[in-house]
Amino acid sequence: MAVRALDPLRIEPLRIVALGGGHGLAASLLALRHLTPDLTAVVTVADDGGSSGRLRHEMGILPPGDLRMALASLCDDTPRGRAWHDILQHRFVTDGDLDGHALGNLLIAAAWQHAGSAVAGLDQIAELIGVRGRVLPMVAEPLVIEADVTRRGQADLVVRGQSRVAVTSGRVSRVRLLPEEPEMCPETLEAIRAADWVVLGPGSWYTSVLPHLQVRQLRDAIHDAAHIALTLNLQQQEGETDGFTAADHVRVLREVDPDLRPDVVVADPGWVDDVAQLEAVAGELGAGLLLRQVRADDGTARHDPLRLAAAYRDAFSATWGDVARG
Amino acid sequence: MAVRALDPLRIEPLRIVALGGGHGLAASLLALRHLTPDLTAVVTVADDGGSSGRLRHEMGILPPGDLRMALASLCDDTPRGRAWHDILQHRFVTDGDLDGHALGNLLIAAAWQHAGSAVAGLDQIAELIGVRGRVLPMVAEPLVIEADVTRRGQADLVVRGQSRVAVTSGRVSRVRLLPEEPEMCPETLEAIRAADWVVLGPGSWYTSVLPHLQVRQLRDAIHDAAHIALTLNLQQQEGETDGFTAADHVRVLREVDPDLRPDVVVADPGWVDDVAQLEAVAGELGAGLLLRQVRADDGTARHDPLRLAAAYRDAFSATWGDVARG
Repeated sequence: MAVRALDPLRIEPLRIVALGGGHGLAASLLALRHLTPDLTAVVTVADDGGSSGRLRHEMGILPPGDLRMALASLCDDTPRGRAWHDILQHRFVTDGDLDGHALGNLLIAAAWQHAGSAVAGLDQIAELIGVRGRVLPMVAEPLVIEADVTRRGQADLVVRGQSRVAVTSGRVSRVRLLPEEPEMCPETLEAIRAADWVVLGPGSWYTSVLPHLQVRQLRDAIHDAAHIALTLNLQQQEGETDGFTAADHVRVLREVDPDLRPDVVVADPGWVDDVAQLEAVAGELGAGLLLRQVRADDGTARHDPLRLAAAYRDAFSATWGDVARG
Repeated sequence: MAVRALDPLRIEPLRIVALGGGHGLAASLLALRHLTPDLTAVVTVADDGGSSGRLRHEMGILPPGDLRMALASLCDDTPRGRAWHDILQHRFVTDGDLDGHALGNLLIAAAWQHAGSAVAGLDQIAELIGVRGRVLPMVAEPLVIEADVTRRGQADLVVRGQSRVAVTSGRVSRVRLLPEEPEMCPETLEAIRAADWVVLGPGSWYTSVLPHLQVRQLRDAIHDAAHIALTLNLQQQEGETDGFTAADHVRVLREVDPDLRPDVVVADPGWVDDVAQLEAVAGELGAGLLLRQVRADDGTARHDPLRLAAAYRDAFSATWGDVARG
């Protein structure tokens, strides 16, 4: 297939949809905004801890935290945009009820009560604060994550709630979403279907990345997308993916959705101990493997936005496994 | 003195500073924005009830409610400005901690924690949401209002706190501010001194209008202003001014600040039962009396913004009592 972003005759910008939640999705958005203005974030809505969890339970709304972080990641790179970024992300430190609430979460909650729908409220905020791109929830109602957890020398157990799953001491063997058939956002399905590229990951594997593949209608829309890139994390995540190799991440994803056919798997060579193994697992899905140094130099396990942008540019420019995809 | 707003050779817009708080100040701002883009609100910071009172005590900040209402009154008259107005004024309705908080109060509180100073935070919000004009606090620290209250057939008592003074069942005979010498905002003093017109009232007489005259440095700055207009309310206010005539309002103000020399007193003829008496009391201060129908037709005791704008235009255009002012 011809490369659309780099086709000099193409006038429309590349339409990219990034799926995920939390810091992983933020990393993806900070990179992808360098490649296109037509960028949509599709955000997990299963958080039940912290400010988001309190608002979710107090107001019966979608947990706003991951949506806020996505909005903040897409604020304009101007003094005004940077000021909005900081205010959205501002977290109250008080001795009372407001302690720990992020202002952006409260702004989203107010816009939802005011606008009457989650998508209308998010679109309004994006417009008002000058966000580049669009932020949508993966589904229209709050999700509960339930995990089967295996523990060495102990009985398996079921852990319910994203905040508890994320810090479980065992190893997650399987994750379910409740409800199984949540109410959908038509705008979200439409954005995914219309995308030139859908980007899945990086992020908390079980609680931010895989959920998108566990809702039937979302999964079907992702399968319909023109191209799919899968971005791996930079290390294991304590609790969720203890002891996982890079290849294990792909295997887990295949168990959840055997029909997913990514074009390319993007990984940092610094964490891939067995390249041949990862290449083989990716190849079984019909995907090519793109190894690029995308980790930041600050000693953290964060992606560097410009390195990741360069990697995505390469990913979107090459022709991947058309034969293997059949 | 020549009329500056209507002088065809004058290029600079009229500099107007409106003093007050709550709905009274909002009414003034909604009118004055029709006359000049160079409009500054100087807002009382003594509220201790509702969302403002909770934030003041939880975070040790100025009560933001009256400042929020002033910002909302100055939002641009565009779809974006009207959306911001509605979001600032949105009040959460929940079963939990957030119930009753106005989003705009939380936004101001976040900007203050982020910007580090009250004026910088307010200027930043005004810039970010596209406010026409400027909103400043009257002083830099929260005030406590303490009132001597006379009750028929009962002992006098001292009532402390604006929210309690506003609903006291007796008659307020005197009001004090604590601290007596609060920390000042240099920007506020500068704006008042530089004003072509300072507008005092309408509003809750003891708790929103008179406080500006009870802080020495503010009072001195007001005395230095080029011109002063005093706008009366449209009725008595239960609790604060039960049984007051229009002339009584001016007398009370003179007791608090005998040296104030307003150019003009603006009143609605519908509430002035004794025009000669009001004219005489105004004249003793060196002020002319401007009677205009400024009440709205909706049956409430609210000012109609355009009628009040027309009255202010007349007030600012005429030459008032230059002889009497000496």
